[in-house]
Amino acid sequence: MTAGVFTTNRVKAAPVVLDMERLNQHGRAKAILVNSGNANACTGERGMEVAVATSDLVATELGVDGDLVQVASTGVIGEQLEVKTFAQAIPGLVRCLSPDGFDDVARAIMTTDTVPKTCARTIDIGGRQVSLFGMVKGSGMIMPDMATMLCFVMTDAQIAFPELKALVSEGVDKSFNSITVDGDTSTNDMVLVMANGMAGNQWLDEHTPEDREIFARALNEIFLDLALKIVEDGEGATKLVTIKVIHARDADGAMDAAQTIANSALVKTAFFGEDPNWGRIIAALGRSGCRFPTERVELFFDDVRIMENGMGLGGEDTEKAAQEVFKKDTFTVTVDLHDGGASAEVYTCDFSYDYVKINADYRS
Amino acid sequence: MTAGVFTTNRVKAAPVVLDMERLNQHGRAKAILVNSGNANACTGERGMEVAVATSDLVATELGVDGDLVQVASTGVIGEQLEVKTFAQAIPGLVRCLSPDGFDDVARAIMTTDTVPKTCARTIDIGGRQVSLFGMVKGSGMIMPDMATMLCFVMTDAQIAFPELKALVSEGVDKSFNSITVDGDTSTNDMVLVMANGMAGNQWLDEHTPEDREIFARALNEIFLDLALKIVEDGEGATKLVTIKVIHARDADGAMDAAQTIANSALVKTAFFGEDPNWGRIIAALGRSGCRFPTERVELFFDDVRIMENGMGLGGEDTEKAAQEVFKKDTFTVTVDLHDGGASAEVYTCDFSYDYVKINADYRS
Repeated sequence: MTAGVFTTNRVKAAPVVLDMERLNQHGRAKAILVNSGNANACTGERGMEVAVATSDLVATELGVDGDLVQVASTGVIGEQLEVKTFAQAIPGLVRCLSPDGFDDVARAIMTTDTVPKTCARTIDIGGRQVSLFGMVKGSGMIMPDMATMLCFVMTDAQIAFPELKALVSEGVDKSFNSITVDGDTSTNDMVLVMANGMAGNQWLDEHTPEDREIFARALNEIFLDLALKIVEDGEGATKLVTIKVIHARDADGAMDAAQTIANSALVKTAFFGEDPNWGRIIAALGRSGCRFPTERVELFFDDVRIMENGMGLGGEDTEKAAQEVFKKDTFTVTVDLHDGGASAEVYTCDFSYDYVKINADYRS
Repeated sequence: MTAGVFTTNRVKAAPVVLDMERLNQHGRAKAILVNSGNANACTGERGMEVAVATSDLVATELGVDGDLVQVASTGVIGEQLEVKTFAQAIPGLVRCLSPDGFDDVARAIMTTDTVPKTCARTIDIGGRQVSLFGMVKGSGMIMPDMATMLCFVMTDAQIAFPELKALVSEGVDKSFNSITVDGDTSTNDMVLVMANGMAGNQWLDEHTPEDREIFARALNEIFLDLALKIVEDGEGATKLVTIKVIHARDADGAMDAAQTIANSALVKTAFFGEDPNWGRIIAALGRSGCRFPTERVELFFDDVRIMENGMGLGGEDTEKAAQEVFKKDTFTVTVDLHDGGASAEVYTCDFSYDYVKINADYRS
């Protein structure tokens, strides 16, 4: 079984459209063809023909049905891919396929990434050992060029398609959809999870909720681990910051508030400058769509309380303690709205000179 | 008559709350007290007492009603203002009041601004000369600290309150609400327009639509001129770029699309790098809330068409022509959605090393 989650961007690259159609129809896949350098996006009908043609080349070489090949592209938008290049490369690629090739693939799909990003888990389901292995590329979140996010997870678990599809969607929400480097999304983002059933465990479906839960936990761990690796490797990033919004009136408001804070250029440059400038956090909170009683807001940097009842606590000691938190590589900003039971958590990084440098003239 | 437009941020500084109450009640004001260095935001009840106390000091010194004084603060959030400092300064300030003091005030309200920003117009209304003079401060749009946007316009026009209020709101939408430097808004933003009627023109109200139109045009010109001066003086900005979205299905979608493109960190770093990376513009368009047929999108940099029918036009000549446009200090990005009759226009700047530098450690 294979389940996927694809970019919500209205402009979808040809491979994304093709993969979505194929997974909708078959719910499974036998191979994934990945290329970098060219996103095959905004390429019209010809782009779609090329996506089909390259997947057919893989299918022929592997002796599988063309519809069971998924395609992922990342790179410059608006240029046509050359099928010829694929025709030349694919026989060699198929010859080199190996059960030990995971790390090589994780390295091959890197673009502006500075490190390969993988994560593995082994779990026990009813006495059977089940393995999961994931890899991801992406270091801007989620960039329209070479820094598109692509995530592939392979497992030998035996799991029904509806279950796999649901678990992948849920897991992506709590991981990849909760990280941000710059608030941009790509035309090519995708997460694919392939399960071949070779572990021989009892089928994971609606009749095995407990086993399903064990698998879900492992899958979520892999997703979150890979998602945080993207933020840590964020273009020019020097810090990994968790933004928690708690006691919000509703979940949408909490997520909106957390994302607005996490994406504010002013907040992110303050992180980079190690300046605990909480006014910027409150101003970002205030312009988000979240409704809250301003006179109840409480704000923490790790466990240093910097604001209470909507007012700054001031004081040199508090300020100094806050500064110490901001000097750390990893810390948490908690906004307590004292207004209800909903909460949200978003992971972000700082905004540095290097972000501008990496992105100012990316294509040359 | 005095009309104002205030920050939509949920967290409003004490002076903003006070000014809104007073204008709602009286529709006029006789003085504006402005301070920088301290925003008087997130300061609770004490903050409001201080705002009232400082405006009372001005009222006493001028011999006017305290309710007719407006207060504007810009600076660090969360610290209490000292009334004592105001008590010492205000008598001297009132002594120095002069009809020629406009430029001095425009310079005095600067914070991270690199130049004072003023604009004047003289118009003829029914044989009477009517003058308008405006000043603005702000160079991040719109920053929660020292870079809050404050705009004050004085005119001797004789105009009814409902007319003035309506014209100010309409004008602000097409100017200050259509610019962006970093997408952030402040707790202290405000635009105040004072009209003292001394020009002796026939009252501008519902009975004088043509005269009203002449005045509206002049006011809009002042607003737009001052708004563009903010973008040009944007923190670290080297370019002024107009984002036009045309032939959209509806106005909200057009504005959403234009603002998402104008605020994208990836698009803005590409402007800085003079890289006509149109894929980033299309990706930002695609993640905006605007609905459009992707296969019809047409994209221009000034009059260089780089995309048609949702596909890149490619070609070295086109690319070279696009690069020439991006080398200019000022240019226009036009997105034609071929989907309806609505349009929107937003003014933005690029995102440079200096933006990060200015904001990384602002408070120290």
